Amino acid sequence: MDYKEMAKQVKEAGALLAAADDGLRNEALLRIAGSLEAHREEIFAANRRDMERAGDLRASVKGRLKFDEHKLADVACGIRNLTQLPDPLSRVLFERELDEGLILSRVSCPIGVIGVIFEARPDALVQISSLCIKSGNGAILKGGSEAKETNRALFDVIMEAGTAAGLPDHFAALVEERAGVDEIIRCHEEIDLLIPRGSNEFVRYIMENSEIPVMGHAAGICHVYVDRDADLDKAIPIIVDAKTQYPAACNAAETLLLDEPVADEVMRRLQGAAPVDVTYIEARGEEDFCEYLDYKMTVLRVSGADEAIAHINRYGSHHTDAIITENEETAERFMTFVDSAGVYWNASTRFADGFRYGFGAEVGISTGKLPPRGPVGLDGLVTYKYKLRGNGHIVRDYAEGKKSFHFRDRS
Amino acid sequence: MDYKEMAKQVKEAGALLAAADDGLRNEALLRIAGSLEAHREEIFAANRRDMERAGDLRASVKGRLKFDEHKLADVACGIRNLTQLPDPLSRVLFERELDEGLILSRVSCPIGVIGVIFEARPDALVQISSLCIKSGNGAILKGGSEAKETNRALFDVIMEAGTAAGLPDHFAALVEERAGVDEIIRCHEEIDLLIPRGSNEFVRYIMENSEIPVMGHAAGICHVYVDRDADLDKAIPIIVDAKTQYPAACNAAETLLLDEPVADEVMRRLQGAAPVDVTYIEARGEEDFCEYLDYKMTVLRVSGADEAIAHINRYGSHHTDAIITENEETAERFMTFVDSAGVYWNASTRFADGFRYGFGAEVGISTGKLPPRGPVGLDGLVTYKYKLRGNGHIVRDYAEGKKSFHFRDRS
Repeated sequence: MDYKEMAKQVKEAGALLAAADDGLRNEALLRIAGSLEAHREEIFAANRRDMERAGDLRASVKGRLKFDEHKLADVACGIRNLTQLPDPLSRVLFERELDEGLILSRVSCPIGVIGVIFEARPDALVQISSLCIKSGNGAILKGGSEAKETNRALFDVIMEAGTAAGLPDHFAALVEERAGVDEIIRCHEEIDLLIPRGSNEFVRYIMENSEIPVMGHAAGICHVYVDRDADLDKAIPIIVDAKTQYPAACNAAETLLLDEPVADEVMRRLQGAAPVDVTYIEARGEEDFCEYLDYKMTVLRVSGADEAIAHINRYGSHHTDAIITENEETAERFMTFVDSAGVYWNASTRFADGFRYGFGAEVGISTGKLPPRGPVGLDGLVTYKYKLRGNGHIVRDYAEGKKSFHFRDRS
Repeated sequence: MDYKEMAKQVKEAGALLAAADDGLRNEALLRIAGSLEAHREEIFAANRRDMERAGDLRASVKGRLKFDEHKLADVACGIRNLTQLPDPLSRVLFERELDEGLILSRVSCPIGVIGVIFEARPDALVQISSLCIKSGNGAILKGGSEAKETNRALFDVIMEAGTAAGLPDHFAALVEERAGVDEIIRCHEEIDLLIPRGSNEFVRYIMENSEIPVMGHAAGICHVYVDRDADLDKAIPIIVDAKTQYPAACNAAETLLLDEPVADEVMRRLQGAAPVDVTYIEARGEEDFCEYLDYKMTVLRVSGADEAIAHINRYGSHHTDAIITENEETAERFMTFVDSAGVYWNASTRFADGFRYGFGAEVGISTGKLPPRGPVGLDGLVTYKYKLRGNGHIVRDYAEGKKSFHFRDRS
């Protein structure tokens, strides 16, 4: 497989896709949804082969790998919802008359080609490719190899239905070999953004070995801080939810910060509060401020909100952190000073998710400081360009004072 | 100098600066403007020493190095204008009720610490630091060494006036040794964004040697394409302006693309049209599609707008490219398909500049695909975070179907 050539083809297709109007992109999405349903049996058969090959993986991994009627209904519904969302492209973000007849506008446009490397979860392939179609981006997809046959089946249906609807050939490409990852992350002339999902080590490897901008997160070390002014009737369920509702997620809480005055009472009430056994580990040192992805949680007693904030900013991963308090002033201080993509007051960190934010879907969660930050949906997959329309305008006239700018905003 | 320690101090100050309200930031800016005027003599004296040391540099370089009454008036005016601009921080970019009592908002906030490495232009130091103050970011500044004494004098005034007005100590830091550059680009835990300005080689060096996100541009290979439907009375002045108004700028045009039917006539009319001698070089190969930063221009004849678009996307630098035509359809096609930060119709590429766009000032121009793209002013120096305010909300209730999201947008 010549991955450079593959990336070039997607780049060329991406340029055409960028110019395709919203009607065509939606029409293609609807055809894809219908075609996935029509090809259900082939897709399920491919998935059964993947599941057999997978053998005795962990139940949670197999749950993600499985692609059945239920998942099909979900992704088809997701695609149809996406067609209802407003076009993210060609939006005039502002328009300004710089001078008579010289009009500047900032207009949204696709990023170009997006390379997404994701876990063995076939529904992710459908979500990511449909988000890329809606946002006019070319997509290079590398899914977890355990889902190889399902991914191929889904991809083939998507490409056939998409091109039949009028999308350009090669609007997406599927990378099937693991070695392809190292090849595509080198295609910095063709790929504009990489979104790696997976283990910390994997994401860090991509970040360190590619010149392409990377969006995503390595660690997900989220905190729950229980303040002295907390209502413990809220605190306990939130701690339990943040830790146990789905411990393998990046937005699960890993460290519990307890304000001294309430620490003992919280620990007492936590006994038996969760539906599963959770091991609470009193922090001894830095090595305990880690990501467990398991029913374990580090507990650290702090002297108040300021120490909690300092701890989170130092040892956290800028993902999502929550304060439990009835004191509005303390809550606002926490939300101002904690330097994370998500800062929560009296809510579980598990809400950090594109679906729960109402974005329709997400391609990933970014812990970088620059936008897009946090869960990234459709509007994180577009950028903008400046269009300037003149009538023979030259800078010399302004430099010499013959003309001057008047900057009248039109929108 | 311990640069890591310096960066840590700025990071800590940045957190405080982020929480400083707009009134305080504006008050500090006004004091800085006044203080720069009050210390004019010391600043001018420092600049005279820099100018003497500079000796016989090129006139254009000395012009940038010079800091006199005129430049002082400009920067003081620029600072005062900045205080008139709306606060870029704490803006609620959207607010959505996810469910009863569970309110999500996306709120603008500073990026954190910005490292700017810029040419020997003392006014740039003032502009960059004032933009960082207004946007609540800590700043680490490394200016061209030819301006060393002026930079120190300006920096000392800014720090003294800023902290006297109530900004935190170390809200900015000055790097004076060239070796400091290699140190600061390694501070990826403290610095959130690097903005290098200077030669292609220098910018590329920073991009390849730092894990910190880099905003900026290496080459500035801008094009003017004269279409068969061009009004040559507009085309000739635009070509002349784009090439000669300031040839050392990144937005000066380097390659002239001529549609065959008008090519000879354009070349004929260009003779003697510019106030200086310009050498037009007929393109022989790839090596001619370069950045001259001089009164030289490559000329390539093309078969029409589509070949021009393909050429620009292949050999350009995604900076700013112009089409000259009276044909609206061709112009719109050009502006859609040319993948550059700025796409212009009947206007000189020299307009690509934060001041001319009405941004007040710019920290640089980005040719990356992700935002901020193009000239970057105040709004490119902020990011956002998500604040979620609940009342004990947990995800389990939604996963189990006891509750459901209703997603009501409030703004």
